[in-house]
Amino acid sequence: MEQKLTQLKTMLADIVDLGRIGGLLGWDQQVNMPPEGAEDRGHQQALIGRLVHERQTSPEMGKLLEELKPLAATLDPDSDDARLVKNTAKGYDKALRIPTHLIEEFARVTTVANMAWVEARQKNDFSLFSPHLEKIVALNQQFASFFPEMDHPYDALLDGFESGMKTADVKTIFDTLRPQQVALIQAIRSRPQVDDSFLHQPFDEQKQWDFGVEVITRFGFDWKRGRQDKAPHPFTIGFGLKDVRITTRIAPDFLNSMLFGTMHECGHALYDLGHAPELDRTGLDGASSFGIHESQSRTWENLVGRSLPFWQFFYPRLQQYFPQLASVSLDNFYKGINKVQPSLIRVEADEATYNLHIMLRLEIEIALIEGKLSVKDLPDYWNTKMQEYLGLTPPNNALGVLQDVHWSYGNIGYFSTYALGNLISAQLWEKASQDIPDLSEQIRRGEFGALLAWHREKIHRHGSKFEPQELVLMVTGSKIDPAPYMTYLKQKYSEIYGL
Amino acid sequence: MEQKLTQLKTMLADIVDLGRIGGLLGWDQQVNMPPEGAEDRGHQQALIGRLVHERQTSPEMGKLLEELKPLAATLDPDSDDARLVKNTAKGYDKALRIPTHLIEEFARVTTVANMAWVEARQKNDFSLFSPHLEKIVALNQQFASFFPEMDHPYDALLDGFESGMKTADVKTIFDTLRPQQVALIQAIRSRPQVDDSFLHQPFDEQKQWDFGVEVITRFGFDWKRGRQDKAPHPFTIGFGLKDVRITTRIAPDFLNSMLFGTMHECGHALYDLGHAPELDRTGLDGASSFGIHESQSRTWENLVGRSLPFWQFFYPRLQQYFPQLASVSLDNFYKGINKVQPSLIRVEADEATYNLHIMLRLEIEIALIEGKLSVKDLPDYWNTKMQEYLGLTPPNNALGVLQDVHWSYGNIGYFSTYALGNLISAQLWEKASQDIPDLSEQIRRGEFGALLAWHREKIHRHGSKFEPQELVLMVTGSKIDPAPYMTYLKQKYSEIYGL
Repeated sequence: MEQKLTQLKTMLADIVDLGRIGGLLGWDQQVNMPPEGAEDRGHQQALIGRLVHERQTSPEMGKLLEELKPLAATLDPDSDDARLVKNTAKGYDKALRIPTHLIEEFARVTTVANMAWVEARQKNDFSLFSPHLEKIVALNQQFASFFPEMDHPYDALLDGFESGMKTADVKTIFDTLRPQQVALIQAIRSRPQVDDSFLHQPFDEQKQWDFGVEVITRFGFDWKRGRQDKAPHPFTIGFGLKDVRITTRIAPDFLNSMLFGTMHECGHALYDLGHAPELDRTGLDGASSFGIHESQSRTWENLVGRSLPFWQFFYPRLQQYFPQLASVSLDNFYKGINKVQPSLIRVEADEATYNLHIMLRLEIEIALIEGKLSVKDLPDYWNTKMQEYLGLTPPNNALGVLQDVHWSYGNIGYFSTYALGNLISAQLWEKASQDIPDLSEQIRRGEFGALLAWHREKIHRHGSKFEPQELVLMVTGSKIDPAPYMTYLKQKYSEIYGL
Repeated sequence: MEQKLTQLKTMLADIVDLGRIGGLLGWDQQVNMPPEGAEDRGHQQALIGRLVHERQTSPEMGKLLEELKPLAATLDPDSDDARLVKNTAKGYDKALRIPTHLIEEFARVTTVANMAWVEARQKNDFSLFSPHLEKIVALNQQFASFFPEMDHPYDALLDGFESGMKTADVKTIFDTLRPQQVALIQAIRSRPQVDDSFLHQPFDEQKQWDFGVEVITRFGFDWKRGRQDKAPHPFTIGFGLKDVRITTRIAPDFLNSMLFGTMHECGHALYDLGHAPELDRTGLDGASSFGIHESQSRTWENLVGRSLPFWQFFYPRLQQYFPQLASVSLDNFYKGINKVQPSLIRVEADEATYNLHIMLRLEIEIALIEGKLSVKDLPDYWNTKMQEYLGLTPPNNALGVLQDVHWSYGNIGYFSTYALGNLISAQLWEKASQDIPDLSEQIRRGEFGALLAWHREKIHRHGSKFEPQELVLMVTGSKIDPAPYMTYLKQKYSEIYGL
């Protein structure tokens, strides 16, 4: 068995390395690639996609897994090796159903679609992107059709981001959450609005960058194993346990983009940098799910970065960087960065309204995949739903349906994981606060080591060994549950808005 | 036949794409990679190397070429398709002769050797590098032994950089060149030295960068298809016809590094950006040879960038960037950047002495491969030859035998291409000046379009279709010939030094 496991790990190491290479091609496309490089990059991504898929579905892989499955059944089912065989077998079964030529087509279509989306958003012209999105929806429908045993075709897509999660489960969670969030927003709306005008003024871009670097260095971001660059749509990507890169964007007249974007991406990176070295290059060195990943980014962005203790430590430092904030009290600053106001852009949404942006997208994606909504009707549908959910109508498509990059990458099924991540982050925070009784005090002193160590131990080191529901249950004692997040929101905003 | 050609091109497109992906991994390593990323990057590069070699030597490739060779013989021998089959068959035959385990050993040996070289140069201790160099020489001797039909074992190595070129040909060229270059240097030495002290003073780094960008933009560098970054050892690399990247380095107290480095790399990039689109991703989209590539970089760096007409246009601009040059006349500036002085370091050598550095290296490499010189005797041999060729003895090995990186990468046979590039650049210039009678006037007006178009038409578009001697003959009417270069040097330095 040892020999067969070694053989499997050797095959998986190639697959992992190819995935990392594909990751670098993507990172470079976002950060560095000259505009006209897209077509060739598409060929290169398609090739990597094909090489990965060939390996994931090779007869040798199938044979080896058949031989290993009965052997793995004799192991502790939670051991690394048992999980490796189980997860690899699941991936093999999924990959086998999708023809290689579709993988290649997907890579080619999305590479070009992404560049088209960039232009469409810049020029505020949905028609530049819609033919590409039509292809992407059709490809996703085709993928879903290869999994007829699923309760709902969207399940097959969701599983790619949130392993084991069902569309019905997400809907149930969202159905519980939505009336509570709406009620909270209404309560807040009845109170006097807080002032955040001081966040909207010129902030030197280099100083913004430097402050962000200071914060995440204190969080524990390891610059010997990572770097930060600018990108139009911030993201995090790792090419190994020792090379994890984040990106941020800086708005010259608004502090929040850099501030919370940088902390958010750092949270993702800390996860990618924290997998157990013994899982490295085995395929278990990924994330449990996108929702778990998002719980990590939200922990550092919101539960830490939008908390009063955090700013008790960092606000005097921020004022040194930006003397124009000297006249703004800590209390007002804290309220300002937590201002609740329904808005058009998901990534700029406050914690109280954010999940509504997600629910809108989930409905749209399900309707697109079911064929009940066509791409050409999407802008109108978007605007109608925005009015229904958030009481706003985007003045143009750049501020509406074109705002997110995800569809241009071909990702349908991704968005819910953001809301799930919010919920999970609060569940984990509740548990971490029990395990680290002086957590707030530590944060007030600018100390984040215990919090990071807790997440390393509970979440990071396991890589993709456990499915998200398993992991959350294991760490918190319950499955994904909206209650802690709502408790957190209600307590926080009761103080800020005097509810 | 059409079908088999399509099949070949499909296989070659994968090999080209893998090569470009490997290129990006390397570029990123030089420009972006965090320090601890090296080990994983090694895995990734090794994987790409293996995938390329598997494809280059696959039985399918062999069978296809056997079928295509008789068919290609019925085509015009200078047609794209005939050349494609011919060049691919040559590459296949070469790759097949070298056992895979030697390729792997070569990769292992050179990875360690390069690290040892860095340390040896830092510590000025040849003994740290010599055991590795011994292995590299032995491996190169082994490679050469797989090509017993060659006139000289060094031919097999040279062919990897300068396809079809023979050791005897290079020796003949250098034997003609050497006495003339030595005589020129002696004549210059008898004249008063020019002053270049104004080049050695603080120059703002951002302004240096900006000036370099202004120059190469005017040369025709296409920023939609390329970019520039900083790297410790400047280089150019392309990942496709629409993504070619250059790097430069900036010395804060010396203008020449950025100035001529940027123009040099731009010359390489213009070549990579100029291959005919129909050759793209066929394997004919590379360079004819390293010597032809160097002729392009030297054209823009020296024949343009160190010429009086160029500075008649650009010197007033440069003085605006750097007011400290206001007191230096154009004439003195021109003389300063063309100062001739025998020196220890190849990459800092002027045009009159540069080739002597190459001749020294060629003699050494041939002697090493013939087994007539042992690695342990190399430092003494180097120093003796330096005295003989340039009248200087290095005070230590870091400034002597340890100065170049090439041997540590396992590259033996590379150096001559630098000198050949110089010669070719002058031959091409002579022809271009006939075809564009007002070339100097155009340059004096800052116009480079006709010169670039000439090189596009004569050199760039052909990619690697023709061997270097073929190409030079085709364009200039004679094979590689040192006469135009010597004419150019003698005329230029007669004016500058009043010979």
